[in-house]
Amino acid sequence: MIRLALYALAASCAALSLPAAAQFAKTEDAIKYRQSALFVMGQHFGRVGAMANGRAPYDAAAASANADIVAEMAKLPWAGFGAGTEGGKSKPEVWKEAAKFKELQDKMIAETGKLAVAAKAGNLDALKVQFGSAAASCKACHDDFRNR
Amino acid sequence: MIRLALYALAASCAALSLPAAAQFAKTEDAIKYRQSALFVMGQHFGRVGAMANGRAPYDAAAASANADIVAEMAKLPWAGFGAGTEGGKSKPEVWKEAAKFKELQDKMIAETGKLAVAAKAGNLDALKVQFGSAAASCKACHDDFRNR
Repeated sequence: MIRLALYALAASCAALSLPAAAQFAKTEDAIKYRQSALFVMGQHFGRVGAMANGRAPYDAAAASANADIVAEMAKLPWAGFGAGTEGGKSKPEVWKEAAKFKELQDKMIAETGKLAVAAKAGNLDALKVQFGSAAASCKACHDDFRNR
Repeated sequence: MIRLALYALAASCAALSLPAAAQFAKTEDAIKYRQSALFVMGQHFGRVGAMANGRAPYDAAAASANADIVAEMAKLPWAGFGAGTEGGKSKPEVWKEAAKFKELQDKMIAETGKLAVAAKAGNLDALKVQFGSAAASCKACHDDFRNR
């Protein structure tokens, strides 16, 4: 009886130690959440990229507004990769190499934060350089952790 | 010849006056964008609601963090409803009754902004009241502009 109670307690603690997964009602929600956050981020990132790459005229205010959204969105998707949420385009390495995955998340958050700063400064050349660094941080993670 | 040039010019101006639609490469992207932004917002709104409705223990810091994300996400979806992006769950009224749709967007942005303020104040009773107002602003729009 005591053993059963201890198992139940241990199970509760395990659940409490997995806040990321526990935030979603079901695995599909976690997958949809991370994909949604990344899609929204990608749309705004693409608009900054179009200016950085000369496909769209440079508009400093628009670049800054879009980069701010990118930097905020960059913080969100990771809560959607909790334990037990395998699926979508994620490779199993997301969960098998969690430390490396976390390192690449942090890198991307840092690089998009620098992109927002560069965009606010209003210098297109600096924006181009930092867009390249931010894009490289996306690619580094996609290469190792996302299926095509 | 001059008439043709004028038509071309008019077409260009029309495109420039539709920045929302023009931001997306294709209609599917606009639909996916607005649905993604609303889904991300809904997940965070649901976490505030779970506390407001007593389904989850009240955690003032978590309520405030989630409400901040709701208030920021609330600003995004509307750019995805540009001219020519009919589809998804949207009723035709989104484009036919644009002024009313805009009024309800603004109402929701205002109410979720107040939700973030209420959550930061750390008073559960005030949070419950403002959660109700914010939820009503979601429902008002869904009732008239979203298919089930």
